[in-house]
Amino acid sequence: MTTVAAYAAPAAKAPLERTTIERRAVGEFDVLIDIKFAGICHSDIHQAQEGWGEAIFPMVPGHEIAGVVSEVGPGVTKFQVGDRVGVGCMVDSCRECDNCEAGLEQYCTRGMVGTYNALDKNGEPTYGGYSQKIVVDENYVVRIPDGLSLDVAAPLLCAGITLYSPLKRWNAGPGKKVAILGMGGLGHMGVKIAHALGAEVTVLSQSLRKKDDGLRLGADHYYATSDPKTFEELRGTFDLIVSTVSAPLDFNAYLTLLKTRGALVNVGAPEEPVSLNLFSVIGGGKTLAGSMIGGIAETQEMLDFCAEHGIGAEIELIEASEINTAYERVISSDVRYRFVIDTATI
Amino acid sequence: MTTVAAYAAPAAKAPLERTTIERRAVGEFDVLIDIKFAGICHSDIHQAQEGWGEAIFPMVPGHEIAGVVSEVGPGVTKFQVGDRVGVGCMVDSCRECDNCEAGLEQYCTRGMVGTYNALDKNGEPTYGGYSQKIVVDENYVVRIPDGLSLDVAAPLLCAGITLYSPLKRWNAGPGKKVAILGMGGLGHMGVKIAHALGAEVTVLSQSLRKKDDGLRLGADHYYATSDPKTFEELRGTFDLIVSTVSAPLDFNAYLTLLKTRGALVNVGAPEEPVSLNLFSVIGGGKTLAGSMIGGIAETQEMLDFCAEHGIGAEIELIEASEINTAYERVISSDVRYRFVIDTATI
Repeated sequence: MTTVAAYAAPAAKAPLERTTIERRAVGEFDVLIDIKFAGICHSDIHQAQEGWGEAIFPMVPGHEIAGVVSEVGPGVTKFQVGDRVGVGCMVDSCRECDNCEAGLEQYCTRGMVGTYNALDKNGEPTYGGYSQKIVVDENYVVRIPDGLSLDVAAPLLCAGITLYSPLKRWNAGPGKKVAILGMGGLGHMGVKIAHALGAEVTVLSQSLRKKDDGLRLGADHYYATSDPKTFEELRGTFDLIVSTVSAPLDFNAYLTLLKTRGALVNVGAPEEPVSLNLFSVIGGGKTLAGSMIGGIAETQEMLDFCAEHGIGAEIELIEASEINTAYERVISSDVRYRFVIDTATI
Repeated sequence: MTTVAAYAAPAAKAPLERTTIERRAVGEFDVLIDIKFAGICHSDIHQAQEGWGEAIFPMVPGHEIAGVVSEVGPGVTKFQVGDRVGVGCMVDSCRECDNCEAGLEQYCTRGMVGTYNALDKNGEPTYGGYSQKIVVDENYVVRIPDGLSLDVAAPLLCAGITLYSPLKRWNAGPGKKVAILGMGGLGHMGVKIAHALGAEVTVLSQSLRKKDDGLRLGADHYYATSDPKTFEELRGTFDLIVSTVSAPLDFNAYLTLLKTRGALVNVGAPEEPVSLNLFSVIGGGKTLAGSMIGGIAETQEMLDFCAEHGIGAEIELIEASEINTAYERVISSDVRYRFVIDTATI
C-alpha cells in the first residue's frame, strides 16, 4: 500500500478537497504510474454530483490520465520504468466475455471496472486521476507515443477515444460529410480527428462564438444551430453527425440534416429521455445510434493516429486548487477546450 | 384513357365503395396491367383515414399489386403481353437524384410518386390496386417469377420488401440471432424471410396466441412481450430486431434485448413520438434505425429470393365487397396474415 495525495469529493455536490488515498501494492501484472496530468471531463462532474445516479464517496475523479511508469510487477511485459503511458475510463473488465475477447472491453457484459466511482474485483473502491500515483493492470494501460506531450495527451484518453471510435466505425474519411454537434471538450476533438481522417467537417454549435477556433482546428464549415436557416440550408447534407451534446435536443430536426441512410451517433448523454418521431428514421432509412469510449486496442490505435497527425487537445492547464472553479466553468461552457490538472500541484 | 372499375374511399374515414376511375392511355414506356390480386396493407387504412396527414380523395388504395401485362407501349423493352408482374408502393420517382441512381428510389430526394394518394408528374392523382387495371412505367414494374402464385405474391410487393430490405442490410443470416417484433402482415413475412436467410429467428409478440403459426412459418423461438420474464430471459440476445409494430413501444426495454452493437430497425410507424433514453443506445453502442420498403432492383431481388425459397404470404382471399369488413378486422389484428382482394370481384 502507498499513501498518495489526491483531490476528492467527500460527498455528492460537495467541493473537492485535498486528501490522501491508499493505492494497492504493485501486483504481478501491475504498473505503478506517476501521474503527471489529469483532464477534467464533464462526466467527472456528472458523477461527483450524482447526476447519473448514486455514487461512491469519497470520490477521486479523473479518467484522462497521463504519466510515467515508475515501477512494474514481475509479470509485466508491456511496459518498463520510464515509459510514457495513459489510463482512460476503465482499469479492468472480465476479460472473458465476447465483448472483452473482441476488444470491446468498454461494453464488457459483466461491466467494466471504472477508473473511479466503481468497485474493483476485490470489492475495493477505485480512485481516479486527480492524484499523484495510480496502480493499474498493464492490460488497461496504453502507451503515449513520444510525439505527444503528456499534458495535451491526457484528454485523448476519454475525449479523444470517444470521438475517434464512432468516426472510424461510421467511416468518416475522404468524400464523407461529417458534422460535429457541439464545440466543447468532446466536440473540438471530433473536429481535429474527423479532419485528420480526411472528412469534410462541419461544426454545428449553438452560436458562432467559437467559429474561429473551429475553423483553425480543422472544420471546413461552421453553423449556428440557434439560426433556423441552418436547418433549411443543411437539410440532407451529412453522412454522419456525431452529437457531443448532453442537453436535450430536438432529434427529429437534426435527423433531417442527414443524407439517406446517414447516422446520428450520440456520445453525449442527456439525463432526460428525448422524444423521437420514428418517421424521422424510417423516411430516409436513417440511424440514431450511440457509442461509448472505445476498447483498449482502439485507444492505443487512436493515440498512435493522434501522434502521427500531431493531434492533442486544446487545454487550459490548472493547479489542483482550481478544480472547483474549473467545475463551475465547465458547467457554464467556459473552457477552451479542456481543463487539465498539473498533478504536481496536488 | 380507359375507364376501370375500382373501390374507392370517397372521403376520409368513409367506407370504400365501388366506382370507376380513368387510367391514362398507354404511353411509350408504359405497361397496362390486368390486376388480378391486391393486398390490403395497414397503411392503406392509415391513409384512407388520414391518420398520416391530409390525403387525396377519392382514394383508391392498394400498393400490393399482382397481375398480368395486357398491353405495352412501343418503347417498352422489359415486358411483354402475358408477363406476370407486380407493382409496389411507387410508380415513379425523379430518376436523377443520387438515391434514384443508387437504386434507392423509395428515398428519392424529390419524393417518389406513391402508387396512390399521390400526384404523378403531370399533377394527376394516382390510384392504386383496388381496381381492375393500372398503367405503370415499365421501370416501376417488377417480374413475378413463375414459381410464385399471384395471390400470395401480391403482399410481397409491400410487406415482403419492407422486411427483406432491412434483413439484408443488417446481415440477417447464418450465425445471427434475429427477432421479429409483431406477428402480423409484416411480421409473418419477416419470419419467413429471416428463416430462409439462415438466421435463428425469434418472434416477439404480445401473446402466445399465434405461436403455432410462428413456429410453422420458420421461427425457432416464440415469446410473449406481455410477460416481463421475456425481457429478463432475452436480455442481450439479438443481433437484430425488426419492429413491425405501429403501436408505441417502450423502446428502452427492447433495446436491452440487443447484443452490443446490435440494431433495432423500425418498419412499423407509430403515429405518436416515442420516448428514448439515449443511455439505451450509448451503453452498448447500439443502433435504433428505420427502413422504408426497398428500391425497384431490390424488390425484384426479393421476389426472386422468395420464389427460390417457396415463400409467399399467408393470405385470406376476399371479395371486393368485403373490403370494409376486412379493414375493421385489420385494425383489430384479426387477420392471418394478409387480406388479398380478388379483383375479379370488383
